[in-house]
Formats: sequence, structure tokens, C-alpha cells
Amino acid sequence: MSAPNRATLWGRVLVDELATGGLEAVCIAPGSRSTPLTVAFAAHPEVDVYSHLDERSAAFFTLGRARRTGEPTALVCTSGTAAANFHPAVMEADQARVPLLVLTADRPAELRDSGANQTVDQVKLYGDTVRWYAELPDPEADERKVRSLRTTAARALAETGGPDPGPVHLNCPFRKPLEPLEVPGDVPEVFSETLAGTGREGAFVETTTGSVTLEVDQLRPLLDALADTERPLIVAGPADPAALSGLEPADVVAVADHIGAPILADPLSNLRFGPHVGTDADERRVYGGYDGYISELPEPDVVVRFGASPTSKPLRHALRDSDARQFLLDPAGAWREATFTATELLAAAPGPVFERLCEALDNGATTETDADEREWRARFDAAERAHWRVRDDALAPKTLEADPFEGAILASVLENAPNPATVFVSNSMPIRDADRFGRPQSTDLTVLGNRGASGIDGITSTALGAGSATDEPLVLVTGDLAFYHDSNGLLAVDRCDVDATIVLLDNDGGGIFHKLPIEEFEPPFTDQFKTPHGLEFEPLGDLYGLEFERVAPVEFVSAYRQSLESEGTQVLAVDFESDANHRRRDALRERVRDEIGAGRP
Amino acid sequence: MSAPNRATLWGRVLVDELATGGLEAVCIAPGSRSTPLTVAFAAHPEVDVYSHLDERSAAFFTLGRARRTGEPTALVCTSGTAAANFHPAVMEADQARVPLLVLTADRPAELRDSGANQTVDQVKLYGDTVRWYAELPDPEADERKVRSLRTTAARALAETGGPDPGPVHLNCPFRKPLEPLEVPGDVPEVFSETLAGTGREGAFVETTTGSVTLEVDQLRPLLDALADTERPLIVAGPADPAALSGLEPADVVAVADHIGAPILADPLSNLRFGPHVGTDADERRVYGGYDGYISELPEPDVVVRFGASPTSKPLRHALRDSDARQFLLDPAGAWREATFTATELLAAAPGPVFERLCEALDNGATTETDADEREWRARFDAAERAHWRVRDDALAPKTLEADPFEGAILASVLENAPNPATVFVSNSMPIRDADRFGRPQSTDLTVLGNRGASGIDGITSTALGAGSATDEPLVLVTGDLAFYHDSNGLLAVDRCDVDATIVLLDNDGGGIFHKLPIEEFEPPFTDQFKTPHGLEFEPLGDLYGLEFERVAPVEFVSAYRQSLESEGTQVLAVDFESDANHRRRDALRERVRDEIGAGRP
Repeated sequence: MSAPNRATLWGRVLVDELATGGLEAVCIAPGSRSTPLTVAFAAHPEVDVYSHLDERSAAFFTLGRARRTGEPTALVCTSGTAAANFHPAVMEADQARVPLLVLTADRPAELRDSGANQTVDQVKLYGDTVRWYAELPDPEADERKVRSLRTTAARALAETGGPDPGPVHLNCPFRKPLEPLEVPGDVPEVFSETLAGTGREGAFVETTTGSVTLEVDQLRPLLDALADTERPLIVAGPADPAALSGLEPADVVAVADHIGAPILADPLSNLRFGPHVGTDADERRVYGGYDGYISELPEPDVVVRFGASPTSKPLRHALRDSDARQFLLDPAGAWREATFTATELLAAAPGPVFERLCEALDNGATTETDADEREWRARFDAAERAHWRVRDDALAPKTLEADPFEGAILASVLENAPNPATVFVSNSMPIRDADRFGRPQSTDLTVLGNRGASGIDGITSTALGAGSATDEPLVLVTGDLAFYHDSNGLLAVDRCDVDATIVLLDNDGGGIFHKLPIEEFEPPFTDQFKTPHGLEFEPLGDLYGLEFERVAPVEFVSAYRQSLESEGTQVLAVDFESDANHRRRDALRERVRDEIGAGRP
Repeated sequence: MSAPNRATLWGRVLVDELATGGLEAVCIAPGSRSTPLTVAFAAHPEVDVYSHLDERSAAFFTLGRARRTGEPTALVCTSGTAAANFHPAVMEADQARVPLLVLTADRPAELRDSGANQTVDQVKLYGDTVRWYAELPDPEADERKVRSLRTTAARALAETGGPDPGPVHLNCPFRKPLEPLEVPGDVPEVFSETLAGTGREGAFVETTTGSVTLEVDQLRPLLDALADTERPLIVAGPADPAALSGLEPADVVAVADHIGAPILADPLSNLRFGPHVGTDADERRVYGGYDGYISELPEPDVVVRFGASPTSKPLRHALRDSDARQFLLDPAGAWREATFTATELLAAAPGPVFERLCEALDNGATTETDADEREWRARFDAAERAHWRVRDDALAPKTLEADPFEGAILASVLENAPNPATVFVSNSMPIRDADRFGRPQSTDLTVLGNRGASGIDGITSTALGAGSATDEPLVLVTGDLAFYHDSNGLLAVDRCDVDATIVLLDNDGGGIFHKLPIEEFEPPFTDQFKTPHGLEFEPLGDLYGLEFERVAPVEFVSAYRQSLESEGTQVLAVDFESDANHRRRDALRERVRDEIGAGRP
């Protein structure tokens, strides 16, 4: 099939190479300048195309899909401010290491800074947030150019991955005609028959990316530390997609068993939920209640950390205030460690490191578990039991009726989630409540959040994008500000055919500000921080074809189960007073502390 | 009043200096890191504070206000993706020369790239789009630092203006406590009493900015050309806010009268509407129908151009295809001239240049109007008459009932607008229809659009921001895609107390794509370009407390008048078939050409 003109050829070759290289999905916002890309993607049998009308939502949807799959996912827009609307999601992809391939159409170079319409400076638009930026040359049916194009496409895909996955930006100038109109002589017949098809089987360039591993010798300091430790901890922070797929939870559990370490697993670590957690409370390895009690326990002496900085502030502070040796594993060798307490940085992927640790520990002499080690685990077990007992009391219908709180909803969402399921948790309070009230369980839950840059700007779209990648049920827990912020994202329910259960915790404004000292300063607290908006969100249900239901906290579980069994997307809105919520959280924390204090040997 | 801590001192001094320097309004999105700025702005008696919940809408609202007033307007957000949400509006402010002062709060430098939560790289976040970027130092009660802060504030304001107005970005790191909590010793009593108040009356630094003018000698080549011309044209493109305030329409009219030049005035030029247009059709100076007929007329021999590249593509092409000497006036000396046909660039503000031209022409010998010149004007007059006659026929109720088209709505909106009024016109088809069907008239209309980067992403917010700056009635004409894109912006109607009449031209998708060759390629035309969404927008009325009404094209004028007389904000939605619309536009253009052809001497 001969391309009718150079722009069509260009789009076709680029998309062909991306698809051959493994690209499976693209999100496209309509526009004229991007026509060659759009036409090529729409015609490609192997790439799923999602059409979006708001570029900000499009970018977050793409981010969500890439986050859920760990696979590079592409994003296309026309020239101008459209590309700037991608910026928030690109920033999140950078921080959270999500493989996002951004293709921005552009005017040809001679029109830039000329006053031409819809022409802005897109060169290096996203600054240092991208792993790689390339400007494509002017399309032309030239052999070297087309070889370069295929190489660039292959490289762009590869650059989204590796030890430090993230966004890549290809800026793609096109001149008219942008449509597949016949331009005689623009693409010689013989040319398009050969090079557009390349004559090679499969990819033009096959990329094989290694992972960063350490030799056993390099692990010796860590192994020595683990041999001596009496109070070891394993801390799993929020995981990026590569870590999600590259780390075997069983290896972490095996290491923990060997050294007698509790695994403190962030809800976003991919370790708090899953079969490795087990169902026997007497063989507890994964701990989730630490946010409520870590400050009450003795300091660890050795900490093995991986993933991003933990969601729990008490945990971060406990790490900061500890004199332990802290080994931080990071495949990109990045000091993602805002408390500045790591003593050893191991620039390697946690997956292979834990595999080697398992082998090394298996081969070594099994150290006897001594009394100190047993005592160390017993302290965590007691604290963990107290934490969940207090939580369970708070969840009892009668208590809940008298003292409803948002944490109960997060607890119920996770505990009653189908197996398997994808649960997306918004920033601000929902992720903190998931952290504190989401008990480790053995069901196969993939819990995700935008915890890279921690914005609330694209939550709905990111969740729906994640849902688009799987047949599992999708649950989104969001607050009213995030729900408003990305209300446009709801269009994807219909346009991208995603079913979800959306749990909307509606406390009419920025509840999180009640946690901060600004609460005491009125004005401007209410008008500028809490910002109650008074929005009744039901009309968004009508606008986007969602079932919208307001449920009382005590009725939540049954409404939630019903939604999970229904077709279509339901919004379950639960009203809360954010002020009362914070008092309730504080009271529960106090109770846990009291119980731990009372129960001390 | 002594500041309780350094962050509070910092916010207070910065805001004080900005207010003293003339800043009158700020838009703030809630956030914690920005607390020192928010608290200071909220407490300042001279600055109007608008609270927004979506940073993208906040930025466009601010842009709209600055565009309408021509005065620097500030924008505040917290750290993280919030700042990236400002990017589209910053890009528009750059292209459209709107004085926008962006204040992003940031984490302190030691937390950057540390994995700390909500911490991204905000240094030079907007690249080359800003006129000036500065990173504030760590707040401290240090005399040199505070003097530097006041100087930076004064300079930031000044940098938004001058010959090339645009956005300025101050990145503002703050450390805790962010709230006005007492920190003993943080700000010495004596310090805050003196330097926070500076001891100076008024601004710490008074900035006086000159305008770029040309001496009469430098204008000689232009004057000589004007003396010799037989077919002169004055072309006024879209104006930036500085041009809006700096150019006297009467001067342009006087020059046009002197040299016998039609003034082709873009709807966004500030010259198509206003008292200078006059009401006597026999003394026509301002021409607005050229989009329909310019291709039918002889080439000009001298063109004087100012403002941005005209909206009308036929006009741009006529300029491109002409051998005329083309004098382009631009205060920033920018070649905003995408057709690359300017022969002389005059780097000077159009205002002072036209003033000097008036003087020079008044002092010179009045050249006799010869037959050629009369013929030249007569050709334009005849064409202009034909254009409006055809348009008026199309507006007749009977015709409209049979052949409704969007252009009729634009014509009616402008013709029936109150005097004075601010009319904001969206990109894509509305601005093109305003260009073609908006007849010059003598009422005081301020017609605005986002014609810098020509996005449809923040139209509603920009319009409401413009409306917030004036007591004039506000009318917004928008399409369904733009209305969807910035649906969040509607929250400002209530929160920022703006009344508007919103005219929604609803053709269910991207009508403009029917104009392009892609229309012939199905698939992907409908799914990827036209993108019908099927949204019934009524629920947005319920959500945001607007009256929502669907009106037939023939009923539009009465519904519009009624809305203008009502309190509150009404959305008047008019349904159209975009396909039929384009056929209608083409047919009207044909009729004008036929009439001109038939009427040729």
C-alpha cells in the first residue's frame, strides 16, 4: 500500500514501528495538525485507540493505563495549548515512573514564532520531566529519514522503560496536506513499497533492556547487617509500575521470615494485598497499621527500604528519628528519601536483589531466633492487633451510626473488594485513610494512586485509564474536590467503555486543611482553604450517564456490594463533616496508643 | 504589626509591594504550601481575591481579567502539578501578550528531587513563555533579602508590561510553619516594624516604562509610500491589551481618511466596533466583510499592518499573494507575520506612530483625491455592501427558518449587544463567524478571544475573568467542545459573582473538521475528528446554578435580549448541524462573489 503523501507515510511508519515494538494503546484528542498520526493509529489493527476531548483528562487516562499495565502507552494531540494540557500528567509520570509516550503534532519549523495561528514553542515543552525528547525532522520520503524515524520510534519506546521508566516526548512537525490526499510524486511508488514496510520482519530495531542487579559480593554489607540485626524492618513504599511487575512478593516474605523482620507495606506498594499475605493471623508478615502505632515502638536497627517515600508521615518520622542503618534500594539510583536518613544506597532493582538475598540466606546457616528477635516481632504483632481491633470497633454499625468517619469507607472498600480488583485511591485524605485503615489481606488487589506528584487534578481519568487495561472490577475512591477537578474525565466512562464503582467522599471542600494549623485562622480558613463549594454532584450523573446515589455511612457496604454486582458505572456519594472526621481519626489513634501502652509487658 | 514568623513576613512584604505597585486582583487556588501568600492576599484591603478550585480554570480566569483590563493580574497555587495546570493559560498569555503574574509556591530547595511528597521541578517551569522568571530565596528576616524581595516584586510587575507584555513567573519556596504561627525570635520585633513597612511612602521602587516610538525621520519611508499609494490598505489584526489601551481609533481613521485607505478591522482589533466607526454608511472607513470578498478585489500597493496575524484566512492569503509594500508595526519588534510578506518592520507601538502620522499628514500638502483612489474605495464599498446585503438576507426570519446557520447567531449577538458590552468569542468556528458576519458598528463593544495560541481549553474561564473586571454586560459565544472542555470554569459564575449570557452553539462535536479534507475520510472522520459526544448540557445548569434554555435559531434574538435584561447567568443553547453550516457558509460566500462580479463596472 503506497502512501499518498509524505505526511501520511510519516504517520504510518511511525505508528507501524511503535506497534511492532509493542505499543498496544493510544489516547488521541481531536485536532487537525495531528491528522497523520491519528489516521495512522485509527487504521492500525493492533493498537487500541481511545478518543478524548479534554487533553488534560486524556493524559491522565493514558497515565492510568500505563500505570496499571506497566507498558508504554501513547498520547497524541494537536499543536498549541493542547500540549500544555498534558503537562500535569507528564509531571506525575516523571515522579511516579510511568512509561508515557507523548506525541505532540507541531507546525513546521518555519512557522514557529512567526505569529502563525495555534503555533507555540513546543520544543522541550516538558523540560527535564521527560526521559528523552526528540524533534522529528520534516517528513519526507527519504530513505535515511525514514530509517531514522523507525529508529527514533523504537528508541522512544525503549526510553519510557528501563531502570527509570517515565515520559518521553516526540514533537512531530507536519505540513499540509495532513490528510491522506494524493500528492503526485511526493512518495515514489517503489519507495513506499519497500521502506514503509522496511523489508525486515518484526521491529526495525529490537531493544533488549537489562535490569540493574548487584553481585552477591556487592550485597555483602547488607547481608552482614542482616546477620547481626535484632530489630530489622522491611519498608515497602509506593511502587512504580516496573517494580510492580519485577518484584516477587514471595521473595520479600522469604527474606522477612529469615531475618525476623516485619514488612511495613504501603497501600501502594503492591505488598499490602495479595496471596503472599496469607490468612493466618499467627503467621503475620505484612503489617499495615503502623501509621497508628509506629511512634510507640522501639527503633529498628536495620531497615531495608524500597519504593518511593512512604505515605505514612508517622513512619517517615520514625525512620528520620532512627539511628538504624538504612539500606535504600532503587533501580535508578535515585535518592528518593526525603527524610535524608538512608545510610546505604543500593542502585539496583529490588526484584533481583531480593531474589539474591533469598538465595544467600537459604545457603547460609540459619541463625537461631533469639529472644530479642521474638520480642521484636511480638511488639509489632501486639500493636498490629490493637490497631485493627480499634478499627473494627469503629466499623461496627452501631458505632458507625453515632460516629461516622471516612476511614470506615476506605476500610470497607478494600475489605469488600472483589478478588481480583483494581482500586484507585485519590490523594489528600483517601490515600491516608487507605494507609491507616486498609488491613493487609490475601486477595489480589491492585491498589493504585497518583502518589508521584500527589495532585488531585486527574484522579478520575487516571482511575478510568487503569480500568481500561483490565477486565477486573474497578473501584475509585475520591474526594469532592478531586471529583470536581476532573469532572471532564467522567466522559471516558461512556466514550472509552469503562465500568467503575466510584466512591465519592463528599465533605464539601478541602477537608485536609482541618489537619493543618491554618484551621485556627478564620478568616481566611473557610474562604481560601476549606473552600466549601456547595456543589450537589447529582447532575454529573445525568450529564455522563452514571447512576448517582447518596448513601449513609452505615448503608455503604450494602450499596457498594450492589454496585459491584451491577453493570454500568455507579457513583456512591457519602457525605461527611471533615472537621468531625479529623477528631475521629485522632481519637482512634489515641485509643490504639492507649491499648499498646496498657498491653506492654 | 509584627510578623509572627519569616514565612508570614515574606508573604506580607511581597503582597504589600505588589499592591503598592498597582496589583488589583489575584486568583488563588487552595493549597497548603502557598499559605503565606494566600493569607497575605486575603488580608490585604486593596487586592480583590478570587478563589478557584481548578488551577487550569483559575489561570484562564486570571488571563481573562488581565486581558480585559490590560493590567497585571496575579495567580497563586501550591506546589506540584497545580503549577503545571497553569501552563496552557501562561502559553496563551505569552502569545497574546497578556500581563499575567504567576506565583507558584514551592518546597524549599533541599527537598527538591528528594522524593518528598508533592515536590516537582518548578524551576523555569514555563520555559521561554515567560518574560521573566525568578526564584525567590528562602524567606528570612534579613534586611538585604527583604529589600531584594521588594525589588523583585516591583520588577515582576514591570516585566509583565512594557512593549511586549506577557507572563512572569516567581517561584516561591516556603518552609514550615506556613501559617501565621508565632515563632519566637524568627522575626525581630524591630525588624518587622521597619522593613516590612519599608519606611518609604508608596512603592519601594516606582517603575516608569517608556513606549517605543519612532521619530518623524524614521517614518519617512512610510510617509513617502503613503504619499504615492493608489491602493492603500490599513489592516488591523487582533490587538493585545496594551494595544487596546494605547491606540486611538480616531488617529487610525484620520490617517485612513488622509490616504484613502479602507481599514480592514479584525473583530478582535478593537477597531471594528466603537464610536469611530460612525453610523453613516456613505462615510464608511471600517470594513468588516473582507473575509467574503477580499479575493475578488485588486491587490493593494501599500499596506500598513498592526496587531497579530488576522483571523481571516482569505485576508492572510490576499496579503501573501500581493506585491505591495507591507509596513508591519509592532512595539516588540516581533515578526508576527506568518505569511512572510512584510517588507518593512517598524518596531514601535502603533499608538504613537499613528499619532505622528496624523500630525505629519495634517502638516503636509493634502493630495488631491484622484480617480484611481476613488475607484479603489468604491470597489471596497461595493463589495462591503454586497457582503452585508447577502448576510442580511440570510438573517431574515423566513430564510433563517429554512436555512439556519451559526453565523446568524454571531451576527445577532454583536448587533444586539448592549452598549457598552464585553463579548468574548471562542476559537474554532465562533471567531471565524464573528469575523465574517459581525458588521462594523458604532457601539462600544469590547470583543475578545483567546487568539494567541487559539486553544479551546479555557474559554469559559477567560470570558468570566474578563467579565469580573467590568460592570458591562458580558456575553460569551462558545461551541460545545469548548463548553465541555472548560465546564469547571462555570463554577466561577457563583464563586466569583460574574453575570453572563452564554451563547452555546451546539453542533455535537468538532464542526470545524467539516471544513477540512479529512471530512472525506470515513473512518476515521467521525470517531476521531468530528467526535460527536452526545452530551446534553442541561445538567451543567443544575450543577452550577445557571438557567439553561434551548432556543431555535429564529427565536434566538428574543431569547438573547431577554437574557441581557435578566439577572443571573443564562445559557442559551442553539443546536446546529455543522455539516449544513459549512455548506451554508460556502453558499453565502458564493453569493457575495456573484454579486460583486455582476456589479463590476
